Amino acid sequence: MRFRLLPLFLCALPMIAHASEGHDSLGPTLLALTIILVAAKVGADLAQRLRQPSVLGELVGGVLVGNLHLFGFDGFSFIGTDPIVDALANLGVIVLLFEVGLESTVQQMARVGASAFAVAVLGVIAPAVLGFGVGVVLLPTHSVYVHLFLGATLTATSVGITARVLRDIGQSQSKEARVILGAAVIDDVLGLVALAAVSGIIAAANQDVAPELGPIAVIIGKAVLFLGGSVGLGVLLTPYLYRNAARMRGGGVLLGISLAFCFCLSWLAGVFGLAPIVGAFAAGLILEGAHYQPFVDKGEHQLEQLVRPVSNFLAPVFFVVMGFRVDLATFAHLDVLGLALALTVAAFVGKQLCMLGVLDKSIRKLPIGIGMIPRGEVGLIFANIGLGLTVAGERIIDDGTFTAVVIMVILTTLLTPPALAWSFQRVAR
Amino acid sequence: MRFRLLPLFLCALPMIAHASEGHDSLGPTLLALTIILVAAKVGADLAQRLRQPSVLGELVGGVLVGNLHLFGFDGFSFIGTDPIVDALANLGVIVLLFEVGLESTVQQMARVGASAFAVAVLGVIAPAVLGFGVGVVLLPTHSVYVHLFLGATLTATSVGITARVLRDIGQSQSKEARVILGAAVIDDVLGLVALAAVSGIIAAANQDVAPELGPIAVIIGKAVLFLGGSVGLGVLLTPYLYRNAARMRGGGVLLGISLAFCFCLSWLAGVFGLAPIVGAFAAGLILEGAHYQPFVDKGEHQLEQLVRPVSNFLAPVFFVVMGFRVDLATFAHLDVLGLALALTVAAFVGKQLCMLGVLDKSIRKLPIGIGMIPRGEVGLIFANIGLGLTVAGERIIDDGTFTAVVIMVILTTLLTPPALAWSFQRVAR
Repeated sequence: MRFRLLPLFLCALPMIAHASEGHDSLGPTLLALTIILVAAKVGADLAQRLRQPSVLGELVGGVLVGNLHLFGFDGFSFIGTDPIVDALANLGVIVLLFEVGLESTVQQMARVGASAFAVAVLGVIAPAVLGFGVGVVLLPTHSVYVHLFLGATLTATSVGITARVLRDIGQSQSKEARVILGAAVIDDVLGLVALAAVSGIIAAANQDVAPELGPIAVIIGKAVLFLGGSVGLGVLLTPYLYRNAARMRGGGVLLGISLAFCFCLSWLAGVFGLAPIVGAFAAGLILEGAHYQPFVDKGEHQLEQLVRPVSNFLAPVFFVVMGFRVDLATFAHLDVLGLALALTVAAFVGKQLCMLGVLDKSIRKLPIGIGMIPRGEVGLIFANIGLGLTVAGERIIDDGTFTAVVIMVILTTLLTPPALAWSFQRVAR
Repeated sequence: MRFRLLPLFLCALPMIAHASEGHDSLGPTLLALTIILVAAKVGADLAQRLRQPSVLGELVGGVLVGNLHLFGFDGFSFIGTDPIVDALANLGVIVLLFEVGLESTVQQMARVGASAFAVAVLGVIAPAVLGFGVGVVLLPTHSVYVHLFLGATLTATSVGITARVLRDIGQSQSKEARVILGAAVIDDVLGLVALAAVSGIIAAANQDVAPELGPIAVIIGKAVLFLGGSVGLGVLLTPYLYRNAARMRGGGVLLGISLAFCFCLSWLAGVFGLAPIVGAFAAGLILEGAHYQPFVDKGEHQLEQLVRPVSNFLAPVFFVVMGFRVDLATFAHLDVLGLALALTVAAFVGKQLCMLGVLDKSIRKLPIGIGMIPRGEVGLIFANIGLGLTVAGERIIDDGTFTAVVIMVILTTLLTPPALAWSFQRVAR
């Protein structure tokens, strides 16, 4: 009996597996989300007990979970390669920047606009020069193009970490926060410009022609067009949009329409060559309490209160995944540690110089220099492009240099949350 | 000058595109979410004005957006193939069932357990017999295996639609809702049993041996193990888990831990061969207000209020996508419309008979028969498996029969929301 049963069972198994296929194709993602959320909450708890921003705990929680393979446990590595988790992480940082944007208005941002612009420009020039210098000193045998690219890699500012720290320590409505966030948006444009400039120079060198300014003008033009157009049209049209939406029936209209607005501008930002989070932040700036007051009058919660649970769910996914991708084994490359540390110092010092751009005397400078430090995934994207570029047969970024950039990104990411919290405490004294 | 600029620009373009690649790989998903959320809210608004549940509007909104290609506009078809959107839709129905589960307790479900079990069993047997009969009458030249499979296809209950309608019309805490939801959970098990039984019979016929009961016992055993184990252990352990979690610092602990619990049971349900939504519903049942009272005492919102925005964001994605996948061109297959309508009638009538299983006299029967009607994606999964099975060279489900099943699924899905709302109004009079 048992022997007759077995082959039939084996032959039915794939059918049963197939039957449940539609069911549990989401299985790995569900398990990954469980692990990520637990790591986030445990990490945030420990960070808070050590008087650190929650986001540091989420990052470190991700680092620990992501490096269990160093201790021989490889069961969690699927988290790093799950495309759904990756997408949820990116949605998380989009919703986070939207939420942070909601806490300021376009007018408030415009008021710190000059300082933000000066901070952004200095925050690109200073690290670029220092990064170039590090290249000249530590990689003297490499070509000038390598030094240029290294400088460009240090220009980026990754605003996700800073935005989250500002929220964690209750400072996202401060003037300092607005200067940092405004400068980071401008930095996203300037970073693209720096990358295009260096890439253009390299391309021109390969073809033995003079580099041209056309592509850079296009990048700047597109960015200005998006930011000016979205904010201009947004400020004009959203009151009308929300007045009509408030007449709509059905539940969750305020949250649904607002998220649609956020996703729409995030998508448009991507179309115009900018990071989606820039669009999400702009969407948050444009929306003001007055626009959705009719919903609140109807008994809905404030928009901030509705967005908060969504960002509380998704934003930790971003930070845990960001930590997860930190490969601690990188630090074992002792030969590049010197270059890595020099780049990290250049990254720190370079962004400290940018606080000289603060024109408004009522704005505290120290938090701004520190808030601009994180390089995050933007620095990695730059370095990654460098891996694929060559001049006269020499790779612009070789494996060692790439590893050094990765270590720099890890250090700027992990050191910023405690440093930024400390800087606000210090100026408060 | 312009002619020298062009080639350089063209050569720099891929770099710029590459630079923004990390940025806007999420682009299509963001655009899709924008379209989906707008379609959901506009559809829900219109449905409410016609005194229908919002979910009908979301479904119809999805149907319209998904069938624009019939009018020559093909720009939105990417929505149906975006794997991220698909995953968000599935997360949406998981969070929805978790939310609906939160509104009942294990005790309340146990109290209607006998009725739910009887309803589920009758709700499998009656449609299976009727479906078999439809096959015998309308497909007389096909083998008995085709008739058997057709019967099995009608057994499934897709609980997402019903759960959402119950929430929309404010009935998710009614006894009728509990019977429907409990029966649907049991149906998920019985549907797998029916599928395994028919598949086993077909496999045995192909090998010319007698079918065995082993695989079916395994399915039932796994399901009972999961449901009993998760509910039993859950009821025992969650108070302890939540007492400790309440001591954790950092924001969003209640929502984070609760979603982790929901995702964990959803994942486990999949591992045990059940639908993830069964696990999510069980998680919601297990969690009770008393468990998370310490959080509320600390000033957090009620868990329902925290989950609501997440489900308000994600659940409409599920229903719009479900509507999106309805291909109206299917109805042009006039040759199978007769079979489709006969199957639909069998699907309706079969589930009406199951209200005879209601043992508690205080429970109104009409809404229960109607709440069990939707076949949703479960029926499609069954039919899909049939497409791949053959007996003696004859395909169990041919293209025409498959199309008829699809039409039956569409009709049961779209007719249930108005019918269920009507049934509750009728019994209220």
